Amino acid sequence: MSMNYFYVVPLASLFALGFAFYFFKRMMRESEGTEKMKTIAQYVREGAMSYLKQQYKVVALVFAVLVLIFSVMAYFGLQNNWVPFAFLTGGFFSGLAGFFGMKTATYASARTTNAARKSLNKGLQIAFRSGAVMGLVVVGLALLDISVWYLILDHFIENADTGHKLIMITTTMLTFGMGASTQALFARVGGGIYTKAADVGADLVGKVEAGIPEDDPRNPATIADNVGDNVGDVAGMGADLYESYCGSILSTAALGASAFISNPAMQQKAVFAPMIIAAVGVFLSIFGIFLVRTKEDADMKMLMKALNRGVNTSAFFIAIFTFVILFLLGFENWIGLSFSVIAGLLAGIVIGQGTEYFTSHSYKPTRRIAESSQTGPATVIISGMGSGMISTVIPVVSIVFAILISYLSPLGFDIKNMLSAENIGMGLYGIAIAAVGMLSTLGITLATDAYGPIADNAGGNAEMCGLEPEVRKRTDALDALGNTTAATGKGFAIGSAALTALALLASYMEEIRIGLLRLGDTVLEFADGNTVEVAKASLIDFMNYFQVTLMNPKVLAGIFIGSMMAFLFCGLTMNAVGRAAQKMVEEVRRQFREIKGILTGEAVPDYARCVSISTKGAQHEMLLPSLLAIIIPILVGITMGVSGVMGLLAGGLGSGFVLAVFMANSGGAWDNAKKYIEEGNLGGKGSDAHKAAVVGDTVGDPFKDTSGPSLNILIKLMSMVSIVMAGLTVSWSLLG
Amino acid sequence: MSMNYFYVVPLASLFALGFAFYFFKRMMRESEGTEKMKTIAQYVREGAMSYLKQQYKVVALVFAVLVLIFSVMAYFGLQNNWVPFAFLTGGFFSGLAGFFGMKTATYASARTTNAARKSLNKGLQIAFRSGAVMGLVVVGLALLDISVWYLILDHFIENADTGHKLIMITTTMLTFGMGASTQALFARVGGGIYTKAADVGADLVGKVEAGIPEDDPRNPATIADNVGDNVGDVAGMGADLYESYCGSILSTAALGASAFISNPAMQQKAVFAPMIIAAVGVFLSIFGIFLVRTKEDADMKMLMKALNRGVNTSAFFIAIFTFVILFLLGFENWIGLSFSVIAGLLAGIVIGQGTEYFTSHSYKPTRRIAESSQTGPATVIISGMGSGMISTVIPVVSIVFAILISYLSPLGFDIKNMLSAENIGMGLYGIAIAAVGMLSTLGITLATDAYGPIADNAGGNAEMCGLEPEVRKRTDALDALGNTTAATGKGFAIGSAALTALALLASYMEEIRIGLLRLGDTVLEFADGNTVEVAKASLIDFMNYFQVTLMNPKVLAGIFIGSMMAFLFCGLTMNAVGRAAQKMVEEVRRQFREIKGILTGEAVPDYARCVSISTKGAQHEMLLPSLLAIIIPILVGITMGVSGVMGLLAGGLGSGFVLAVFMANSGGAWDNAKKYIEEGNLGGKGSDAHKAAVVGDTVGDPFKDTSGPSLNILIKLMSMVSIVMAGLTVSWSLLG
Repeated sequence: MSMNYFYVVPLASLFALGFAFYFFKRMMRESEGTEKMKTIAQYVREGAMSYLKQQYKVVALVFAVLVLIFSVMAYFGLQNNWVPFAFLTGGFFSGLAGFFGMKTATYASARTTNAARKSLNKGLQIAFRSGAVMGLVVVGLALLDISVWYLILDHFIENADTGHKLIMITTTMLTFGMGASTQALFARVGGGIYTKAADVGADLVGKVEAGIPEDDPRNPATIADNVGDNVGDVAGMGADLYESYCGSILSTAALGASAFISNPAMQQKAVFAPMIIAAVGVFLSIFGIFLVRTKEDADMKMLMKALNRGVNTSAFFIAIFTFVILFLLGFENWIGLSFSVIAGLLAGIVIGQGTEYFTSHSYKPTRRIAESSQTGPATVIISGMGSGMISTVIPVVSIVFAILISYLSPLGFDIKNMLSAENIGMGLYGIAIAAVGMLSTLGITLATDAYGPIADNAGGNAEMCGLEPEVRKRTDALDALGNTTAATGKGFAIGSAALTALALLASYMEEIRIGLLRLGDTVLEFADGNTVEVAKASLIDFMNYFQVTLMNPKVLAGIFIGSMMAFLFCGLTMNAVGRAAQKMVEEVRRQFREIKGILTGEAVPDYARCVSISTKGAQHEMLLPSLLAIIIPILVGITMGVSGVMGLLAGGLGSGFVLAVFMANSGGAWDNAKKYIEEGNLGGKGSDAHKAAVVGDTVGDPFKDTSGPSLNILIKLMSMVSIVMAGLTVSWSLLG
Repeated sequence: MSMNYFYVVPLASLFALGFAFYFFKRMMRESEGTEKMKTIAQYVREGAMSYLKQQYKVVALVFAVLVLIFSVMAYFGLQNNWVPFAFLTGGFFSGLAGFFGMKTATYASARTTNAARKSLNKGLQIAFRSGAVMGLVVVGLALLDISVWYLILDHFIENADTGHKLIMITTTMLTFGMGASTQALFARVGGGIYTKAADVGADLVGKVEAGIPEDDPRNPATIADNVGDNVGDVAGMGADLYESYCGSILSTAALGASAFISNPAMQQKAVFAPMIIAAVGVFLSIFGIFLVRTKEDADMKMLMKALNRGVNTSAFFIAIFTFVILFLLGFENWIGLSFSVIAGLLAGIVIGQGTEYFTSHSYKPTRRIAESSQTGPATVIISGMGSGMISTVIPVVSIVFAILISYLSPLGFDIKNMLSAENIGMGLYGIAIAAVGMLSTLGITLATDAYGPIADNAGGNAEMCGLEPEVRKRTDALDALGNTTAATGKGFAIGSAALTALALLASYMEEIRIGLLRLGDTVLEFADGNTVEVAKASLIDFMNYFQVTLMNPKVLAGIFIGSMMAFLFCGLTMNAVGRAAQKMVEEVRRQFREIKGILTGEAVPDYARCVSISTKGAQHEMLLPSLLAIIIPILVGITMGVSGVMGLLAGGLGSGFVLAVFMANSGGAWDNAKKYIEEGNLGGKGSDAHKAAVVGDTVGDPFKDTSGPSLNILIKLMSMVSIVMAGLTVSWSLLG
């Protein structure tokens, strides 16, 4: 096959970046409004940029150390020479995606407020198109990174045998996923701690003690709170999904290279297929973005409809196009494979709907939580946690169905031979491409996600500048819409993380193969005397050789450690938020006490001090959990070998996924239970029920915006670290 | 080998039951104190018994249905004919152990109060010896059940080949574990919901709203609260540990029968070894119980020392005796196997110490939670959850070490061949016997555990009868001591559940072997054409045949479902407590409103009404989570076959264990953070910090006493159900 098909990938990348630039420019042409609005926006922008600079400094240090380690490993032949470079670009592009997204968001918020002074529709347009910048930058940079690396490696890697050359290329490219993961982890954890320290601190003293509303300019932590939305929800989310997007495409390519090794005619196409589906998804996303428009006098329902129209149209067409793409590429089982993609898409949608059901106050679960606030904060917490735990059923059942269907469908549901050496590669390729399906329209789904914090900040700007109630009402409506789309977005983020991690699990075994070959181990010798060539061994052969079964105590030990990692990681990030928030509370209390006239509006609070407390807190607290996520997989590898690592990854994936859903949904439900009461139910604002609900919301903050989302990355990063360290693991480990 | 050794088992059983009877009689000779004390005790006793009767009615119904199903399965040859009977006796004895323990506890509490009027030491003696009744009844009935069934099956099962006869006997006996599990689950879940509905309800209205102290007779829910301690902490705990104790002994016996199949001289001894270690542990427990005595004018420290002396002496001697027993039985690797037992014992101790560190307010973690109460309830919840999640590290690391050491040690640390067909059986036998080691001194460790609620009730009795402050101070001291020993006890309960579940995982594969043989499948045919006789296949052969590897999508799907089960189960029980507590709150508020003079002490509240609300709430709410625990493993079996079930069990074990530790430790820490403030720190009783800490304590109630402990049973019950249903799973499954 010629490379012609491939060029749609860099083309899509350029399109995405081009439109991102176009939307950015158009947004910048709008006015930021009054002087006061400009000043506030400027404060937030500066706070966000200064934080991001700090964060990049820490991350740069970590990257320097890791690159050094990889270079040493490459020198000793435990990895190939491209790995340090791939790792670096992955990290760089992931950081860049977050940076551009945040830059855009901080420019867009005041402009959204100003547009909302005219109409709801104008506000939506600015906020959504700015969110689209983020979505398009992420997919554009991802496809750019993928295209460039593919071309470089295709040129430089020398191998007489095309089949193995493609395996070398794709497995090397996978390692830039680790760079993206590492960057994403720091962004999510650091950003998450920052935003919630500020938010919790601002709420505890402002709303609860001083009795002033959210985003009130008298609250010293209010700028930090708005900065937090940008560094956590925009930059963090961007880096996270950049990583899932790359990870799913690259692991599918790697699995394709291996599954089709004996069919050279199809191998290259199997490598290109996920890239091309993603590329077509980019065009459809841009198309969808343009569909999001409504009448000037639109109400909430019409706005929601407009957003849904964009997202659903893109999803619908990518489902159709998948059949076309896979047919044109010439896959024999194009229908089956297409259904894998659709299974992924559907799972994402169902998870999103489930999240909506369990977190929106239009439905029973959240209303019940609101009702339980009548007996105080304790029952709010108990019922919120109970409901969140129960809500894990829908995502798990969706993922289980997606796994089984996307595996079996490319095999024509040949259940009897589903695990034969010929079939397993194809089945796993099906699971991997399901993740690609779920993420193919990321350009637009991420736009609806990034739109949320922009609307949130727009509301903050309106409140701080004391704009008319009508404007504040409009920005509140935009914010509420953002909360709903965020629920769906979280469903995609979490579902795609699970499927991507599964694909990475399979890719890990491919890296083990490469590691063995690099060490010169060309033959697997089994206990019964049988031998299999490493280059031709199936994944089942590897499973048997390394005895990655559930009766192997190393696998079981790994599962325990993996499950623990999810909880330990959450515990550390929860405590980090708690500690940083407490410092914020003390600072705000101090300012109220020492700076006379703050509460009467006669004196300006020291916003900068609060920004710097959040920044320092996040810097200080993000290191330990992030480093653990990198170090533990390495430690497990050198003590318990391949089987221990597989156990670790599977245990971490199972527990981490369920824990992440639980935390996200409990947090979301508490947030909306509070809003439900604020809308005048059960006594409304200021009632005891409301106070109890505020406690729930505050507990939910780190749940849904720090610990929960960071788990997405933890489960991917642990896989990525294992993949990069595969060479070390196969060369030596304590218990074999 | 003659059966001589074996008779030490029924002998130990009779000794245990005899001493239990003796301690019971001696306790009954003591006076219950004043008329009022007697009346209160009578109320509690009646409430507890009436609840237990209700619970047994529901359980009897469930048992009737299950026995019917098993009989049908036996009729169709999917199970052997003994299973329904074994299942019934397991359930019956487990219920009996809870019943006797609770009966004793409800008689002992007023007597403890009365003894505490004389001295601290007298109070300790009554409470502890009554706890010992429970400990000894549990181990006595367990060994009785085991002995009788062994003798019956040995007599009736006909098989030309002794080796396979022993396998038949031990795997059949395993199924009475499912009876015990089912009973235990209902006891834990029902009792847990009962006790926390009453406790949370009593606290929310009494302490928080009306501002009256705990156990105040003016609070209508106070009797229900005291009843709850008995039905949850005594009867529930008894049934739980009865089940772990039987499960560990029986699964070790089953694994021994299989591991030594080719060595007839040792096989019978391998079956007897866990029973004999347990039997010797009974004698040492009784010895230890007699060591718990101190001077008349003893203070708290001396009491603690007295308790520790008893427990530690028993543990020390069982470690020594294990070497002797295994040497005398003639095991070649007696030293290695003994170290497996010691690894189990040590893991139990370390987990207990870790629990102590993370839940006692003598240490930093709990003090930090107390400090965070100064910024309100939200930060108390956040820091308590964070700390609880971090606390999972110690138990997981302990269990991982215990697994690896107890597996490798009987193999002489032959790491290279640790998974060879010859070694795997022996290694798994090592893991199983480690669980036996952990539980061997259950007679005394359970005594220190059951002592807690007795002391708690004694305090309640003193408060309700308005006894002198000096007495209340003494009962408080006894209660505080009980909280510390409960922490250690929980460590053992949770650690032993994990190791037992691992042993059951291996036993499950043995049941699959039996299931295949019963279906007439005598040969495993592999994809590569190789064949292995089912009767001689190693567990690794089964793993390969059923492809229970981490690349099998059914295994991965199972892991997801297992992880979800732990959360779903917790969510359902949390919500159940929330709902039942809300009903209790409404009832108490109603009584305060409608019965004039309650708060001034002029009118007597309607205690019975609250007791009946808790009873009904528990009955109603326990059914769904309990049935799920039974039905899901069956469903997974018939859809995804053996590999799906193994994934389910491993996923449930990993997540369930970590989640259980987290919930128990968060709950314990909140409780003690509140006590720390009540001792006069950070503002003391009545301060805002105290109010925030009470919220934490209330949230912690269902964490530590309902959902957390029920998880112990969930992970064992799911294994037990799978074991009993193995015949069905191998005969047919949708994907399998």
